[in-house]
Amino acid sequence: MDLHEALYTTRAMRRVESTPIPEEVQKRILDAAIRAPSGGNMQGWRFVLVDDRAVVGRLGKLYRECMTTLWDTIYKERMAEARAHPERDESRDFEKMYSSAEWLAEHFPEVPLVLLSFIQHDTSGGSVYPATWSAQLAARAEGVGSALTSVFFLRGDDVLDILEVPRDEGWVFVNCVTFGYPKGRWGVAPRRPAHEVAYRNGWGGELGFEIPEPLWKPGAD
Amino acid sequence: MDLHEALYTTRAMRRVESTPIPEEVQKRILDAAIRAPSGGNMQGWRFVLVDDRAVVGRLGKLYRECMTTLWDTIYKERMAEARAHPERDESRDFEKMYSSAEWLAEHFPEVPLVLLSFIQHDTSGGSVYPATWSAQLAARAEGVGSALTSVFFLRGDDVLDILEVPRDEGWVFVNCVTFGYPKGRWGVAPRRPAHEVAYRNGWGGELGFEIPEPLWKPGAD
Repeated sequence: MDLHEALYTTRAMRRVESTPIPEEVQKRILDAAIRAPSGGNMQGWRFVLVDDRAVVGRLGKLYRECMTTLWDTIYKERMAEARAHPERDESRDFEKMYSSAEWLAEHFPEVPLVLLSFIQHDTSGGSVYPATWSAQLAARAEGVGSALTSVFFLRGDDVLDILEVPRDEGWVFVNCVTFGYPKGRWGVAPRRPAHEVAYRNGWGGELGFEIPEPLWKPGAD
Repeated sequence: MDLHEALYTTRAMRRVESTPIPEEVQKRILDAAIRAPSGGNMQGWRFVLVDDRAVVGRLGKLYRECMTTLWDTIYKERMAEARAHPERDESRDFEKMYSSAEWLAEHFPEVPLVLLSFIQHDTSGGSVYPATWSAQLAARAEGVGSALTSVFFLRGDDVLDILEVPRDEGWVFVNCVTFGYPKGRWGVAPRRPAHEVAYRNGWGGELGFEIPEPLWKPGAD
C-alpha cells in the first residue's frame, strides 16, 4: 500500500465486523508498531493483544461506563452545543463521532481484536503513540479498520485489574485500539486545512502558503 | 513510497544537512500531519514551522540547555551504566543516541526546518503524536530525515516565550521535530522483537507467535 493512501484514509473505524483477524495479520500489525521511535529509543512499552471473549467483554463493560462518564463530563458542553445547533458543521461532526462511539460501546464485546498499550513511569504517552499509529496504519494496509481511544484513562486502575498488570512496576495504561474489518468505507476524513492550524516562525505568523484541498486524493497515485 | 518501507525505515535522523526544505515538500509534510486522527476529532492542535535563523537559533540554545539537564538528571543513571559497561548492547545503543543528540545540540541553529506542536488544555499529548508521526513518515517519503524530541518540556514556558504563544488560551507545548536531508542512511533500526514486549489476553500471557526478524526488509516490496 502507498504511504499517502494510508496516511490520508486511516480514519477512525469503530463499526467493525466480528470476523477474527488472522494471526499473520496480527503479526504484521504488531511488528510495524515496534519499529516506531520512542523517547531515547527506550522502547519502554508493553502491548497486550486481547481476543479472549471474556476479557474483551470486561473491557467492553468498562468502555460503556467510561463513555457514559465522558458524555456527562468532558463532552457535556460540546454535546449540548451540538443538540442546540444541529445545523452547524461541528454539530454534525460531533453527532457522527457520538453515534459511532455509541455503536462501539454497544458492540465492544464482539470486537475481534483489541490492543492496549502501557508505558513505564511516564504519563506523557508520547513514547507509545507513534507505535500505536503505526499499528493502525499497518492494519489499514491489511484492510483492517481501527479506532484509537484513551477513554479508559478515566478508569486506569480497572484496566490494570482486568489485564492483571502488576502494580509494583509502574506500568501506566496509555491507550487502546480496537481492530476489525470495517463495516464502512475508507475515505479521506474532513479536516481543518493546514493553513488554519499552522503558523510560521511564531504564533500567528503567516504560514506562507495555503492548502485548500487534500494534496492526496484516491486514485492520485 | 510503500507504507511498510516508511514504517520500518523512518528512524531518528538528527544529523542533517542545512539545505533548505522546499515549500512543496513542507506542504506535503504538513498536509499529511493534519490528516491524522485526534481525540474526538477535535483537531485541537496548532503547529509552528520555524525556518527563521534567529528563531531556530533561540530554540537551539534552549535545546542545548535542555539536553545538558537531561543528561544530568533523567538519563544520568543510564549514562553511568553505559560508561561502566561499554560492551553491552544497550550501552552501545545509548552512546549512539547520545552522540547524535549531542551533534544536534551543537548544530541545531543550522537545522533547516523545525516543527513545534501545541495542544490546548491537554497534557497527555495523545491527540497530537499521531499527527507528528504522520509528518515524519511523509517527510521520509520526500527523502527528508526527522527527529522527534519532547525535551523542551523541561522548559515549556521558554518555548512559549520564543514563539510568542499567548499565555491565556491554555496552549501547551507537546513536541518538536527537526527536519533536514539526512547525512546518514535510511535503514531498519534495531528493536526488541514484538514477542518480548507483547502479551495476549493479560499481562505475561503467551502471545502465541514469535517474530524473530523484521517482517519487512529493504527490497522486499
